[in-house]
Amino acid sequence: MSSTLIHHIGELVTNDPQRGGLLGIVEDAALVVEGGTVAWVGAAADAPPADEAYDAGGRAVLPGFVDSHSHLVFAGDRAAEFAARMAGESYAAGGIRTTVAATREATDEQLTSHVARLVQEMHRQGTTTLEIKSGYGLTTRDEARSLAIARQFTDETTFLGAHVVPEGTDPAAYVELVTGSMLEAALPHARWIDAFCERGAFDGDQARAVLEAGRTAGLRGRLHANQLGPGPGVRLAAELGLLAVDHCTYLEDADVDALRDSGTIATLLPGVEFSTRQPYPDARRLLDAGVRVALASDCNPGSCFTSSIPLCIALAVREMGMTPAEAVHAVTQRGAEALGRDDVGALVPGHRADLVLLDAPTHVHLAYRPGVPLVAGVWLAGRPT
Amino acid sequence: MSSTLIHHIGELVTNDPQRGGLLGIVEDAALVVEGGTVAWVGAAADAPPADEAYDAGGRAVLPGFVDSHSHLVFAGDRAAEFAARMAGESYAAGGIRTTVAATREATDEQLTSHVARLVQEMHRQGTTTLEIKSGYGLTTRDEARSLAIARQFTDETTFLGAHVVPEGTDPAAYVELVTGSMLEAALPHARWIDAFCERGAFDGDQARAVLEAGRTAGLRGRLHANQLGPGPGVRLAAELGLLAVDHCTYLEDADVDALRDSGTIATLLPGVEFSTRQPYPDARRLLDAGVRVALASDCNPGSCFTSSIPLCIALAVREMGMTPAEAVHAVTQRGAEALGRDDVGALVPGHRADLVLLDAPTHVHLAYRPGVPLVAGVWLAGRPT
Repeated sequence: MSSTLIHHIGELVTNDPQRGGLLGIVEDAALVVEGGTVAWVGAAADAPPADEAYDAGGRAVLPGFVDSHSHLVFAGDRAAEFAARMAGESYAAGGIRTTVAATREATDEQLTSHVARLVQEMHRQGTTTLEIKSGYGLTTRDEARSLAIARQFTDETTFLGAHVVPEGTDPAAYVELVTGSMLEAALPHARWIDAFCERGAFDGDQARAVLEAGRTAGLRGRLHANQLGPGPGVRLAAELGLLAVDHCTYLEDADVDALRDSGTIATLLPGVEFSTRQPYPDARRLLDAGVRVALASDCNPGSCFTSSIPLCIALAVREMGMTPAEAVHAVTQRGAEALGRDDVGALVPGHRADLVLLDAPTHVHLAYRPGVPLVAGVWLAGRPT
Repeated sequence: MSSTLIHHIGELVTNDPQRGGLLGIVEDAALVVEGGTVAWVGAAADAPPADEAYDAGGRAVLPGFVDSHSHLVFAGDRAAEFAARMAGESYAAGGIRTTVAATREATDEQLTSHVARLVQEMHRQGTTTLEIKSGYGLTTRDEARSLAIARQFTDETTFLGAHVVPEGTDPAAYVELVTGSMLEAALPHARWIDAFCERGAFDGDQARAVLEAGRTAGLRGRLHANQLGPGPGVRLAAELGLLAVDHCTYLEDADVDALRDSGTIATLLPGVEFSTRQPYPDARRLLDAGVRVALASDCNPGSCFTSSIPLCIALAVREMGMTPAEAVHAVTQRGAEALGRDDVGALVPGHRADLVLLDAPTHVHLAYRPGVPLVAGVWLAGRPT
């Protein structure tokens, strides 16, 4: 098994708690990869010999980004709706239906090549692990094929039949479908189950029914909650002991307490607020209360068509009171935790050697240099891509 | 002289007023370049024959971006200052002095290679014409060499000796230097002269003295004004008939009237407000009053270290009330006007064939997909780079 020494790393973000500081930073660092995993991490001066060497050129090296929330399986484009919203129209959840119609009409090949393009785009921006949801099919056939397509790109696939009630369908009958035959068809392709718990989508009881049916069938739960207003979703997620609950824009004190007490991660999605001109979630309040916070892209054609984790970092610092270190931690270690993964999100021996090399001396530049494509290289399982 | 036909353009932004709409868009378009300039523009179906053909793959094609405001000649990094500011410290103009010290210490080679790297970074993001200022030297020697270095990269060089009064220097004596021997040393390398007219930097009378001395010496004026608070700068720019005045964040009604009446362009720099957490300038108010609005990066190590014109577009739409079309117009046609250029900023016969190809079907995606590196290709004077 051949080993590679990556040396001349100006700043190495390890996320190793034993190294001190939130990010476990090693300066003038080196890292050895072997068989796709990290074999050694430390000061360059102490580096062991290896079969090959790679000069990082003084760059900062970070764990690959873990994007725990995306909706990549869809067809069509809602650029016109975006422009209308920016011209003053308010966020229309009904816009989802446009995407549902286009997705149902698309062939498997069209959907697959579209997902491939977005995954590649994310990868170039440093994302090395990602979750993909269904939710634009909303029929048994279209949800199952959406998940089968997503599964070609990641193991972290999420069944989101409970995204919105399809037009002309009785909500109770639809929940029965989602928890019945649609769930059954989704099962072979999904690891997670999710619901959009929001006024106009699914209420707390409906979301609970969906998550419990999923759990019984062997899927782990995630939840969209408290995006557009206060609601029961965040407390439901905490009560059910979910790993993560996503959005968390409108939180009451009891919601924050519930997150802290349950250990459920709040996954914030600032691209959504940027793209819908809504108020941002208050990351500072959550962190100060002891809640774990992750950041993810929510890449989707309606409310947030960015795939850029670097932009999420910059927005989290500008708009949500996070430090650059907290934001970087939230897209690496916390992203991994939000997916229940202990093999990614940190650069410690035994973890997968997924790396981001920045054209910058430190991780701070991801916030200091917003919009600039700083990702100079990405390694997946120990190999440059 | 060989000609190249670029065909299969999904959307071509020409900025040709005769084609209707702000952007003069042609769909299913083609464009012929010959000898570095645009020779023909129109519907693909009508395209004339050419020696070579290039398939744009259905992409949107835009005029290369014109960035009329940047400060690229400097050394050092202020990432720590940025992080401190984001943690709650207020914008400290004194931070400029850190950069001045580092710039004076750097060799010509170091400064040149740093500018080259930033110019290349801008270019990859679609900028094909840019202005570069001095202003981190603040001695006759260091201002002159900063401009000589900048001139290696662009004809649009601006003498900004009046950036800030150097520490320990009498302001009146410094203005005398800037309008005297420093100006003389700058002249061979500069096309423009600029001053930072702001409380804590130069007042209206000092800025006037600098601009008038420059004009007498043959330089055209530009001005930094009304960034941190109301002041006399914008009205001074209008009175002197400057092409453009930059920042324009704090405007009284009389300022807006003066801009409208004089035709002076307001160049807004939203990356600064993003990076300093200040309120954004109100582009909508200016446009509705009939003022011409340009957007530029203001790339500099202190208040705004982004080089990304696509980010400026996204911020202008999210935060400043511009439509995607207005924002694109502001970084192309208006950017060119702000530099007094009639050979760039539009794709019409006779203009330089500087093009941006987007990995997107329309210019709207620059705002709809914030942070995503959508620039798939850049042509300079008729050649892909």
